[in-house]
Amino acid sequence: MASGRFYLTCMVLGSLGSMCILFITYWMQYWRGGFAWDGSVHMFNWHPVLMISGMVVLYGAASLVYRLPASWVGPKLPWKVLHATLHLLAFTLTVVGLVAVFQFHNHSKISHLYSLHSWLGITTVVFFACQWSLGFAIFLLPWASQWLRSLLKPVHVFFGACILSLSITSAISGINEKLFFVLKNATKPYSSLPSEAVFANSTGILVVAFGLLVLYILLASPWKRPDPGTLTDRQPLLHDRE
Amino acid sequence: MASGRFYLTCMVLGSLGSMCILFITYWMQYWRGGFAWDGSVHMFNWHPVLMISGMVVLYGAASLVYRLPASWVGPKLPWKVLHATLHLLAFTLTVVGLVAVFQFHNHSKISHLYSLHSWLGITTVVFFACQWSLGFAIFLLPWASQWLRSLLKPVHVFFGACILSLSITSAISGINEKLFFVLKNATKPYSSLPSEAVFANSTGILVVAFGLLVLYILLASPWKRPDPGTLTDRQPLLHDRE
Repeated sequence: MASGRFYLTCMVLGSLGSMCILFITYWMQYWRGGFAWDGSVHMFNWHPVLMISGMVVLYGAASLVYRLPASWVGPKLPWKVLHATLHLLAFTLTVVGLVAVFQFHNHSKISHLYSLHSWLGITTVVFFACQWSLGFAIFLLPWASQWLRSLLKPVHVFFGACILSLSITSAISGINEKLFFVLKNATKPYSSLPSEAVFANSTGILVVAFGLLVLYILLASPWKRPDPGTLTDRQPLLHDRE
Repeated sequence: MASGRFYLTCMVLGSLGSMCILFITYWMQYWRGGFAWDGSVHMFNWHPVLMISGMVVLYGAASLVYRLPASWVGPKLPWKVLHATLHLLAFTLTVVGLVAVFQFHNHSKISHLYSLHSWLGITTVVFFACQWSLGFAIFLLPWASQWLRSLLKPVHVFFGACILSLSITSAISGINEKLFFVLKNATKPYSSLPSEAVFANSTGILVVAFGLLVLYILLASPWKRPDPGTLTDRQPLLHDRE
């Protein structure tokens, strides 16, 4: 029963995540002229697509590896490798997404890193790099003791959730800022809510819904690998439901 | 020792919260012409001050009432009343903050609720109203059983944390949007990072730091009222430190 409900939640999560990527891509393709890799505004268009795909959707999915019931039994190492690899892939998409916006700024003589969106976004990416490196050093390399890992695991989980929250905040401020930019001198300005604005606002709401569902599964759901030999808050609930 | 560290963290939190309110007020007073209640842009200036004070700082402080060691012993009812009253005060500030922006829009013939910032902000306020009403009905009125309260408590805590995250996201997108508005035709535009931009961006970063510290104390710290008769994840840690 617990597994059934988990996979149903995963289906909702998968649908929301796919819709986030489809919506942001469709916005850039249909209203903003599509994609290129030439320093133009069409190169900028990769930025929102790659940041939403990397820092929100793939990051969120990668965070939930240990919530899969299949990961609760047997050796943990393959799941750790999967967790680290998916996050590395998310980080790679993020870096390419940053290259897209920096090269567009260079090409169009726009200053880098002046808006609050950019300050928060770059802080989030730096936190992500620190989190991945520390996670790799402590949880994947063999030198750290079990005691140190147990001590740092809740910090790693909490900090991971914070990074996702900051990604969502950066994404929302970015979508909001982009709409003010592009609909500034339009025949139908942002304030008249043209179809592009409704569509992009809805994309933002989808991103928030996806993020909150990831945070629920990560922090508040009963689906977690039971710690061997310890009685946790959630195990009794889990046993009751199985 | 646990108490000492808790009160030290509270001091940092109190300083961050005070700085958030001081910074946002100083921004509005020094660069945006101060305050009035006349439908003008000076009336709008109440909006960021009241939203940061109500939906972020006071909301965050009110969320942490049960983390005070003094609340862990003795009857819970006075602490519940304090928790509900502080949140009601936070909600009141929020509503006044909304009145400020709606009246400014009416006065200046600006459309309501078109930006992603406003969509997310109004959703957050509606969630806050639902959370407060449900919390009042279930945890403060005497009809709900202990079983129902225990079942809903983690949902209430998680949803409360989500609302704070959404408030921070709304605040950041709002500060970002305001800076693009007011520095659009300025001698020193936002992209040249004039002192106002640096100051307001820093205010945004302070808001994020305050929010993350609240979320840490709420969700990941060992400071919580021990559930009578159950062994939780955190009690052993807490006893070790005391």
